[in-house]
Amino acid sequence: MAQSRAPIAGRFTAQEVALATRNSGMPLEALRYDLTPAGLHYLLIHFDIPAADAESWRLEFCGEVERPFSLGIAELRAMAPRTERVTLECAGNGRGQIAPRYPSVPWLEEGVSTAAWTGVPLARLMDRAGLRTGVKELAFHGADRGIDRGVEHEFARSLSVEEALRDDVLLAYQMNGADLLPQHGAPLRLIVPGWYGMASVKWLQRIEALARPFDGIQQGASYHFRAHSMARGIPCRRIRVNSLMAPPGIPDFYTRTRSAHAGAIRVSGRAWSGNAPIVRVEFGVDGAWQDAALAEQASPFAWRGWHAAWNARPGIHELACRATDAAGNVQPLDPLWDLGGFGNNAIQRVSVTVAD
Amino acid sequence: MAQSRAPIAGRFTAQEVALATRNSGMPLEALRYDLTPAGLHYLLIHFDIPAADAESWRLEFCGEVERPFSLGIAELRAMAPRTERVTLECAGNGRGQIAPRYPSVPWLEEGVSTAAWTGVPLARLMDRAGLRTGVKELAFHGADRGIDRGVEHEFARSLSVEEALRDDVLLAYQMNGADLLPQHGAPLRLIVPGWYGMASVKWLQRIEALARPFDGIQQGASYHFRAHSMARGIPCRRIRVNSLMAPPGIPDFYTRTRSAHAGAIRVSGRAWSGNAPIVRVEFGVDGAWQDAALAEQASPFAWRGWHAAWNARPGIHELACRATDAAGNVQPLDPLWDLGGFGNNAIQRVSVTVAD
Repeated sequence: MAQSRAPIAGRFTAQEVALATRNSGMPLEALRYDLTPAGLHYLLIHFDIPAADAESWRLEFCGEVERPFSLGIAELRAMAPRTERVTLECAGNGRGQIAPRYPSVPWLEEGVSTAAWTGVPLARLMDRAGLRTGVKELAFHGADRGIDRGVEHEFARSLSVEEALRDDVLLAYQMNGADLLPQHGAPLRLIVPGWYGMASVKWLQRIEALARPFDGIQQGASYHFRAHSMARGIPCRRIRVNSLMAPPGIPDFYTRTRSAHAGAIRVSGRAWSGNAPIVRVEFGVDGAWQDAALAEQASPFAWRGWHAAWNARPGIHELACRATDAAGNVQPLDPLWDLGGFGNNAIQRVSVTVAD
Repeated sequence: MAQSRAPIAGRFTAQEVALATRNSGMPLEALRYDLTPAGLHYLLIHFDIPAADAESWRLEFCGEVERPFSLGIAELRAMAPRTERVTLECAGNGRGQIAPRYPSVPWLEEGVSTAAWTGVPLARLMDRAGLRTGVKELAFHGADRGIDRGVEHEFARSLSVEEALRDDVLLAYQMNGADLLPQHGAPLRLIVPGWYGMASVKWLQRIEALARPFDGIQQGASYHFRAHSMARGIPCRRIRVNSLMAPPGIPDFYTRTRSAHAGAIRVSGRAWSGNAPIVRVEFGVDGAWQDAALAEQASPFAWRGWHAAWNARPGIHELACRATDAAGNVQPLDPLWDLGGFGNNAIQRVSVTVAD
């Protein structure tokens, strides 16, 4: 059984800094892009980026199936492609704001991005394999190998058959119209729209049909909401309603605090939810909320743009934004406690010093 | 006068973590690539990434010149291009390993990468502008604006006329054969091969010929080697001899410590210097050094590949690498003190646990 790590209080460890440096966040000014450009999309790489060769890569479909097979990237490319615009967020986004916090990537708020993924619906390969009666889950095995809490493994996750059959679940080989980059799972990855990023297994090399629930560490132990280390926990699945603004004004280099001049300022950002479309974003100034204007929702699982007018007066002000989805979910004002630091969708607060 | 920030001892601040998340490092396994792929090249972005439009972008050449002018990106693209393969390293790389450390980006060792940059030699535009007699320096002004130690400014640096005239100093609009990405200075940046990265000004919008030394904060105050805050300091310029290995074996997720099985392991990495070609790399195991094999040096200012054979025996071992350049510079075994955390080229040490 995997051991839990002891939560950390106060300042950050060298291990957390090393993980923050490897696992880049999306700088918040990149909220201006509908599609996050290459190299600005957030990264969560559990182990090392594998040295993968697209020419020789094989995806194996095995387990409880009538017709096991393997195929190469060229065969996938020859099938009719489908493109989905998808917002991915790390389940641990916001972990660094929870006290005490779990020892892992200390995301503050930048673990979210949006890309257009192109590939083949997983359901087509399931058809070809022919699931046997009694299959409950598909397990997806990546090529990235390492050790987590004492357990050596390749990163792997599972989906229920029902979820796997959704026509927007893709085996993707392109991102924003270009071949996958090494750090995004080249040459092949899973994309599960609406779910936190851990479901979208990178460097995908094997799909295994199982008559039982998959019990790999990243499925059975990690990525659970837990109040304490003995709790069984609730699996992290769909992305909770969330929103961010691009902080207005200019930053201080070290503190990243913002300064602006008094006057009319257009504040803009994005809102998203894996559960239902975004129906409302509120923009807050010093605790007073107003409705923001919403842009079109380009795709069911892509973030929705918003903007608001701020008449900035001299002084120090706290800006915030708060999204609501069509299922009635609203962001909380403060982080909810979670042992692993998962699912923190508390509102963003941005302090701006306004000068005459 | 810009104020110095007080050094930090012990664990890392939330500000340092925010900077580490924004300013991504190159994961060390990416040392396998001769040219660092898009999105894996390290980033040091002082303020926000500007929202730049390549179509309307203008570069102004002004100051003490006979024929001031401005031009657009299309005009630069119409000129004969030149491509240079260049290793850039952040002057603050390794800062996070110095105790106490300066409050800034807490690089451990990942602030280095190599790309092929395409553009137009700066010297051609200097010809066109016609420097007046008495010009000492060119100042390069970016579009990225913010506050550093109380001083509001756009990031700007200068070069002596002699340095600016080097035929490998480029105004670059492409990286690895593609248009510059926003975070790398799109649509136009300076590339100064051999110098630490701060010299290669991004989002370049103005070149100013000066009859006096440029005194902007990033030139006159920042980026100096200093033993204490009252010291005048020595400017950071050329990249000190340095090297890294891709850590062998597999990582632990949180600690990033490595594990491997006993037997023959090929260890490889890169070495670079802004002062002279790399002539030697030594590979160390538990303090015993052997010469590594060197690959060709593809370009004067690009890193040089190396590899070594390691007969890994069970136990915990410390691996290291140490480069020497043709000017006789050798990496130190331990970090040299510097107030700002600049130029730390101490050898990398990698602990590996070897099992039977």
